[in-house]
Amino acid sequence: MDKIQSLKGMIDLIANRSDPDDFAESIFRTEDALKNIFLNFGYSEIRTPTLEDADLFKRSVGDSSDIVNKELYSFFDKNEKNITLRPENTAGVIRSVIEKKIDANTHKFWYLGPMWRYERPQKGRYRQFNQAGIEIIGYPEGVAELEIISMICSINNALNIKNSVIKINHLGSQGTKTNYCNALLEYLKPYTSQLDQLDQSRLEKNPLRILDSQNQNTQKILKDAPTRKDFLSDESLKMLQVLKDTFSKDCKIQIDYGLVRGLDYYTGLVFEVISDELGAQDAYLGGGRYDNLSEQLGGKNIPCIGMAIGAHDLRTINPEIIIDVQLAEGSLKSKLRKASKNNAKFAIIIGEEEIETNTIIIKPLIEKNSEQTVMDINEISSFFEDIT
Amino acid sequence: MDKIQSLKGMIDLIANRSDPDDFAESIFRTEDALKNIFLNFGYSEIRTPTLEDADLFKRSVGDSSDIVNKELYSFFDKNEKNITLRPENTAGVIRSVIEKKIDANTHKFWYLGPMWRYERPQKGRYRQFNQAGIEIIGYPEGVAELEIISMICSINNALNIKNSVIKINHLGSQGTKTNYCNALLEYLKPYTSQLDQLDQSRLEKNPLRILDSQNQNTQKILKDAPTRKDFLSDESLKMLQVLKDTFSKDCKIQIDYGLVRGLDYYTGLVFEVISDELGAQDAYLGGGRYDNLSEQLGGKNIPCIGMAIGAHDLRTINPEIIIDVQLAEGSLKSKLRKASKNNAKFAIIIGEEEIETNTIIIKPLIEKNSEQTVMDINEISSFFEDIT
Repeated sequence: MDKIQSLKGMIDLIANRSDPDDFAESIFRTEDALKNIFLNFGYSEIRTPTLEDADLFKRSVGDSSDIVNKELYSFFDKNEKNITLRPENTAGVIRSVIEKKIDANTHKFWYLGPMWRYERPQKGRYRQFNQAGIEIIGYPEGVAELEIISMICSINNALNIKNSVIKINHLGSQGTKTNYCNALLEYLKPYTSQLDQLDQSRLEKNPLRILDSQNQNTQKILKDAPTRKDFLSDESLKMLQVLKDTFSKDCKIQIDYGLVRGLDYYTGLVFEVISDELGAQDAYLGGGRYDNLSEQLGGKNIPCIGMAIGAHDLRTINPEIIIDVQLAEGSLKSKLRKASKNNAKFAIIIGEEEIETNTIIIKPLIEKNSEQTVMDINEISSFFEDIT
Repeated sequence: MDKIQSLKGMIDLIANRSDPDDFAESIFRTEDALKNIFLNFGYSEIRTPTLEDADLFKRSVGDSSDIVNKELYSFFDKNEKNITLRPENTAGVIRSVIEKKIDANTHKFWYLGPMWRYERPQKGRYRQFNQAGIEIIGYPEGVAELEIISMICSINNALNIKNSVIKINHLGSQGTKTNYCNALLEYLKPYTSQLDQLDQSRLEKNPLRILDSQNQNTQKILKDAPTRKDFLSDESLKMLQVLKDTFSKDCKIQIDYGLVRGLDYYTGLVFEVISDELGAQDAYLGGGRYDNLSEQLGGKNIPCIGMAIGAHDLRTINPEIIIDVQLAEGSLKSKLRKASKNNAKFAIIIGEEEIETNTIIIKPLIEKNSEQTVMDINEISSFFEDIT
């Protein structure tokens, strides 16, 4: 009998708990670590359906975005309804907040689950992939921006992602966006005939997307174009500077006035986190403020900011460290035995005493009779750098 | 602007961590508890794609089953390929084991994720639902049966599901199945014209499914039909008796020779767990042995047994107890403060000393100055019964 194969672009993740280098296992443990960070920050889980009305993404992510134009996994169901397997979760969360009429309150949500894109042009991309993220709902620009960047630093540190850079930019208010857009159109008018078809259509549908153009000639033309920075208010410029000053001691953080995200709904702060270790400089985390999305979906005006992370991408840039979060109950002794069995080189022990004194115990597991050492919790990253 | 609604039959689960009675939160904590049990039993996670070739389910779950006949969520993708959103995960796991060529080894897998059925006739059923389960692969009839029933007892006890009954039956080998099937056909021959259209088609496609008939006249006719029990080998009868004798001190367990499951791939032991508290006597957990499935899917002969549980169903039958698994790090003091804030009546404290001595500490949280008590771990269920 014929063997039935998995569908194109789909991956089977099969964990092997006794192999410390196991790829699937380390993706799952990365997800556990993200979940723990969300819980520690006090976020509540939200789980929206994986299937949504196709219109939801056309009206949120945007008609002119690559996601909606080329990548959406859509189909017609038995009742001829146009259904989409969600490509991301922000639109679903806001749809849910509006539908459940909980939009008068503030919320801090986290999610983790499968997303789909039918066309995934890059190598190593799958049609189904797990994404984790948070949405901070009902908070205007201010402390929410600080909290989200602070959480990104926590993630980078907890998962020991080295050489990562947080790039931030500000897209301004709707007014600034319109002014900048008009100035860009004005500047490009004389060059219209020199643009390729794709860029010409961008000019009509969503001119700002032209900044993402892969066409070298377009990029040459754009060199002398008005820059977004010149249109930003003092408040927006100050927000970027405050974030940079606040977090530069914990993380590498850069202001990048050229940063635009591939989704139409962003306003205000946008950010991406890339790792120097990734050849293609791909972002493994991204997000921003999207104050207009709720209204676009028929709800009230709700200020929101959020971010999303690919657990698979995280694992790919950080193959060296296995995060063995031992969820199972058991005594310290049995956990150490298990760690030894899994060829762990060190155990990091954090008990109640250590939590109170902000210390950790490092216990070497390979060389017998070697002494355990107590260190300050802040020394942990330099310890990791030494051993890797 | 029009509001976009969620699709029919889809549910938004939105947790509120500060409300101890929160429905979504308790579903998520139930899932955490299941995951912990799987990890404690030493199982590895497997995550297969949510989308599969529609043929996979036709050839596994079976053409004559309700799932494939009426409930499959199928569609044609942009390349006119017939795709199905998986209705269950056993077929996908076995497809994966064959495709990855890991069928020469034994495996103990657990999974947790979304499943879909397009038609969900009963009230309170959704088109998308989360299911957890395990698959024990490569183990012939024997200890695997004991392990799976033992795990069911652990789940019932850990989640404090009261009044649950494990119903077990044995479908026999392929030979017994054929013999019994022939005897049933022989017996029903004179009654064929009295059967309704559905039962007549069952008689053609898969006669055993007639035992599930909702038609009262059919059930009257079946009263004097040959029983499966008469065709079972001594080994099969003994397996049922051993399971009953081994677990009757821990769980309510019953042999039910009428039990057949709605999926075609079962052979050998089958089981369902129902709760008396559910009006409709719906099973919230079910499974069985499926030694022929791998061959049906084009693989080698691999003996397998598995089970699946609906976390949503579990929560529905057990609304009283909230399992507050505090995943977050923190001192005992801060955890107790959190428990008090969540209006918990008691805290159960299990530290290393308690694990070694098989005891637990019960600390009342509502009445101030009341003493904490130490009790044997085995007394916990009677303690729960007293307080609920």
